[in-house]
Amino acid sequence: MTYKTEYSKYLQIFNEQLDLAIKCLSSDVPEELKDAMIYSVDGGGKRVRPVLCLATTEILGADIEKAKKFAVALEMIHGYSLVHDDLPAMDNDDYRRGKLSTHKKFGEAIGILAGDALLNFAFEYCLLDANFDKLDVQALKILAENSGAKGMIAGQIYDMRNDNRASYSEEELYMVYNKTINLLTAPLTIASALSGGKHFDKLKELGYHLGALFQIVDDIMDVECTLEDIGKSPNKDLEQGKLTSIRVFGLDGAKDRAKFHYQSGKEILAHIENSEFLSEFLDAMYLRRK
Amino acid sequence: MTYKTEYSKYLQIFNEQLDLAIKCLSSDVPEELKDAMIYSVDGGGKRVRPVLCLATTEILGADIEKAKKFAVALEMIHGYSLVHDDLPAMDNDDYRRGKLSTHKKFGEAIGILAGDALLNFAFEYCLLDANFDKLDVQALKILAENSGAKGMIAGQIYDMRNDNRASYSEEELYMVYNKTINLLTAPLTIASALSGGKHFDKLKELGYHLGALFQIVDDIMDVECTLEDIGKSPNKDLEQGKLTSIRVFGLDGAKDRAKFHYQSGKEILAHIENSEFLSEFLDAMYLRRK
Repeated sequence: MTYKTEYSKYLQIFNEQLDLAIKCLSSDVPEELKDAMIYSVDGGGKRVRPVLCLATTEILGADIEKAKKFAVALEMIHGYSLVHDDLPAMDNDDYRRGKLSTHKKFGEAIGILAGDALLNFAFEYCLLDANFDKLDVQALKILAENSGAKGMIAGQIYDMRNDNRASYSEEELYMVYNKTINLLTAPLTIASALSGGKHFDKLKELGYHLGALFQIVDDIMDVECTLEDIGKSPNKDLEQGKLTSIRVFGLDGAKDRAKFHYQSGKEILAHIENSEFLSEFLDAMYLRRK
Repeated sequence: MTYKTEYSKYLQIFNEQLDLAIKCLSSDVPEELKDAMIYSVDGGGKRVRPVLCLATTEILGADIEKAKKFAVALEMIHGYSLVHDDLPAMDNDDYRRGKLSTHKKFGEAIGILAGDALLNFAFEYCLLDANFDKLDVQALKILAENSGAKGMIAGQIYDMRNDNRASYSEEELYMVYNKTINLLTAPLTIASALSGGKHFDKLKELGYHLGALFQIVDDIMDVECTLEDIGKSPNKDLEQGKLTSIRVFGLDGAKDRAKFHYQSGKEILAHIENSEFLSEFLDAMYLRRK
């Protein structure tokens, strides 16, 4: 099976599970809240986190049925984080992937509550499983840690500390990257937990390199690509004074860092059997722009 | 042991557990986020939900060690709901129990994120327990359901639908009350889950009456009490056009409803052995104002 075919397979598994999850939002959920929740996770996108979770679960020979609910939970949490990030008091973004952001579409109060409800539903949905067992407990614990105050939310706080200084340290950069790193590590370590802990430390390290690579490639694209390529104005991040790898390392330095994270990821994967899909995933992420 | 002594006992158990929980907010949590989270749950108050959870667990002969973490989680969720309710886009309240509300003290962005982090931490903290077992899974599931899109958040949405019409139905009133009912039912049904399901349906019904009674007594106090009595201006709710039991039933009708919920609660408790504490809790709630 080619990488693309396999990606589509996981995407389809995820989409079917998302449909089932949405059906769980019963008539007890007020209509406008339900609409805003669905709108916030229905934006398409590459569904990177669910695909990583499903693929890694299969690579480790764990139960993909168990992974499906965590795939949905990961996307709900990713979705809620975008909804709250877009709020006027945060990044104040009116658009997300060419669509009105949730609070612009439904109003700010519903935006806040839809975000809250998505985060809550991530846990609620996982716990709905009648066969929830010790492996699920470990996986849910990992989800909570990665999305919480010392995980994704910590990264968001560090991002806000950005006060448009002339220079930033490498440490500060990676603290901000933690937002992405945590939510790209969780799919891998959740899959490991579902397998009883196979390659846990290696997958955690892989998540770190994946997350950093993802961000650095984004920074490089912001500088090198045109509006048409990436769907936003070039140099937008730099102009807004955002803390990026370009500001810390310069463009060439950032490219070196991207290469380092890419190669580090490849080395880790050399020790994990049957991990071709993850290896190609890493290639695809790196090759967006070297 | 008198009711007051017993209440103090549960309060002390909770306070000690809350201190332990706060210590779990490690140095990996950014300082300003940690401060805002602690500020939001450190406001004192009667800790009604934790006390109900601990007391009911003891009444049912279940493991109070298990209940302690859920007591903390309930208060974290109660705390987050107040932080988000106070935001400018929601109720826009600058003060809460005589203190600046979280977003006024720490800024709106931190307010949003501290609320998110408290909700997330409620689950994270419960899952930290190394002995998390099947009873805990059931209890956590109940927590998630009651705080989520068809529970507490639904009530909040219905509350926002209030459009200052001349009249409201009884059904609309109770839909708004759901916000309170869900978070007062959860402590009781979580305790039941920890006991393996003892008196589950009865305790769920008790939560309904407790929640409705709590709200109606609040409405009556708003009309009958002076500023000094309740710490807020009398008739504030009515003047703001809020949907209250007074608007639906009139003052005498509201008093009748309060009596009905009080008596219904008492009848349920007559069937639950050793439930004197809950019975006195109900008395105390009712007698705030008949």
